[in-house]
Amino acid sequence: MNIAVDAMGGDYAPHEIVKGAIKAAAEFDCDITLVGRAEILNVLAGKHRKPHINIVNATQVIEFNEHPVRAIRSKPDSSMVVGIKLLKEGKADAFVSAGNSGAEIVGSMLILGCVEGIERPPLCLLIDLNPAAPVLLVDAGVNADCRPNHLVQFAQLGTVYAQHILGVEKPRVGLVNNGEEETKGNRLAVDAYPLLKQAGVNFIGNIEGHEILRGKADLIVTDGFTGNVILKTIEGMSEIFQLHMKSATSLVSSTYNVQGEDFIRNLKASTWLRRMDYREHGGAYLLGVNGNVVRAHGRSQSRAMKNAIGLAAEAAEDNLAAIIRERQAEFVKQNVALPESDNTVHI
Amino acid sequence: MNIAVDAMGGDYAPHEIVKGAIKAAAEFDCDITLVGRAEILNVLAGKHRKPHINIVNATQVIEFNEHPVRAIRSKPDSSMVVGIKLLKEGKADAFVSAGNSGAEIVGSMLILGCVEGIERPPLCLLIDLNPAAPVLLVDAGVNADCRPNHLVQFAQLGTVYAQHILGVEKPRVGLVNNGEEETKGNRLAVDAYPLLKQAGVNFIGNIEGHEILRGKADLIVTDGFTGNVILKTIEGMSEIFQLHMKSATSLVSSTYNVQGEDFIRNLKASTWLRRMDYREHGGAYLLGVNGNVVRAHGRSQSRAMKNAIGLAAEAAEDNLAAIIRERQAEFVKQNVALPESDNTVHI
Repeated sequence: MNIAVDAMGGDYAPHEIVKGAIKAAAEFDCDITLVGRAEILNVLAGKHRKPHINIVNATQVIEFNEHPVRAIRSKPDSSMVVGIKLLKEGKADAFVSAGNSGAEIVGSMLILGCVEGIERPPLCLLIDLNPAAPVLLVDAGVNADCRPNHLVQFAQLGTVYAQHILGVEKPRVGLVNNGEEETKGNRLAVDAYPLLKQAGVNFIGNIEGHEILRGKADLIVTDGFTGNVILKTIEGMSEIFQLHMKSATSLVSSTYNVQGEDFIRNLKASTWLRRMDYREHGGAYLLGVNGNVVRAHGRSQSRAMKNAIGLAAEAAEDNLAAIIRERQAEFVKQNVALPESDNTVHI
Repeated sequence: MNIAVDAMGGDYAPHEIVKGAIKAAAEFDCDITLVGRAEILNVLAGKHRKPHINIVNATQVIEFNEHPVRAIRSKPDSSMVVGIKLLKEGKADAFVSAGNSGAEIVGSMLILGCVEGIERPPLCLLIDLNPAAPVLLVDAGVNADCRPNHLVQFAQLGTVYAQHILGVEKPRVGLVNNGEEETKGNRLAVDAYPLLKQAGVNFIGNIEGHEILRGKADLIVTDGFTGNVILKTIEGMSEIFQLHMKSATSLVSSTYNVQGEDFIRNLKASTWLRRMDYREHGGAYLLGVNGNVVRAHGRSQSRAMKNAIGLAAEAAEDNLAAIIRERQAEFVKQNVALPESDNTVHI
């Protein structure tokens, strides 16, 4: 099993990316192909190279502020394009990048192609802040504007993914909404609701913001704008908790005469601070393209990168992209019965 | 100063509503008119009635599951309609309800009327989890689908509100979005951005989910769907945080041999647990109708109700609705220069 890693993408590339890859090779027992400027990567990988780390040279780098489509077309020798091509050519079983997210997604669509019936591949992210109730979020941020049919496709893709990643036979699918009742929502949610009932998935109805972490659904679907806002609001809350914790700690430690740092360390040991840390995220999986593509957080340091590679290795091990393609082909036959939603929304 | 309170609305009505009203009368030195079934309210208010608690009889109650417009029209003697009419007739200076939220908003629009230039009155809620960076959210949940011009109106209404409630001279207005750059966003955000630059407010650009509590903006604007999801996601995070705290506490208290309950109490004393509790919310203010209308959480118990009445008293004291009406009239002249946004979105 070989995972191609964009060594030049992300705020902390290439150093932290290479460190994460070296850790991942050891922990997940997989081969890793670092894609990027070979002269730098040779030095960084150094003695760790053999037997599990390979390097493939790519002379160009796509920066964060570049326009995705233009960047993919104008930089054929970028670490992003070269890495995705390794996957296309079967020289890698999965691809991971923390670089320009738009470029990773557009590049995957253009080079690997979309699975039949999928118009807008979404990102799927596991939110596991509540260990008793992990939940997958689709779309975690790619498609800002969606039609109801897109949400149906997200639910179908996500169902197959959840079966494999969460090990749940009939994943419960919830629609992110602003109320419980079927009639609630913005136009997108109102129109998507009846389609989701006929989508061949285990649709359980609406999920409100406060229910996301309660374990009512295994999978929640929404447009990429709302998905992004949910995800980042959770990140921000995590930040503010840690801020409040610090001031609470000083009060408690002085009252009980215990040392602040020890106290914090013990709280951390009880896992919740760690769980809310995006550095622990395993990355997000791009659903609906012909290949296993994982998106790592742009601010990934070595630990986050290691975890993202772990997710890629898991997907590659299961041959997940191929399974999703097969299952989606069945959904496509069934979706013929669904009304094509209007692409015009009157507000 | 007299605050009309819908004594029959909310999950814990009428008992907790009346308790909250009695506390509020004492704390905020205001008169309160309880609206609802007099025979019950007389018993509940009992000895606390004089001199500050009055009762106005209303024989009907609008339930949570009723259709707002139909309920307002078919129940002229409901506590909701009678209460809003007291405000309309100048017999009260503000109105508060924890009942059917749609009915409260529609009732306010129909009975009090909208301020000139306002098509969709939004709810404005103060999020003060981070005491160093309180932020107002507009729309906190009324208008699920919005046009760009609505967000402009939210920004203008919210600016005047923030000046009074936060005491900030030039409130910084942020647009909730899924990225930093001007070109980011769904169609609504992309189209609203240039309008907000010309809206006569202190527009500072996009605010992502993780920045909401960081103090970059005094006021954030978004459609009511996204606003609702943000708010409820924050509620849910608060819940999961308290869950994690419990398990962390047992570890720490056994390690340091301190008692769990004392420990929790001390943490609470340092205020952050309390701040995340919706029961502490002061309610949300309905911007852009001709009168001071406050929305209390449907699950309000006495403390939340007391705080919502406190907000209503503050608004009444300042004559806030009148100030907003005047200031909006100035904005209206200026908005003539803005392009009317298309009410059709092609996705």
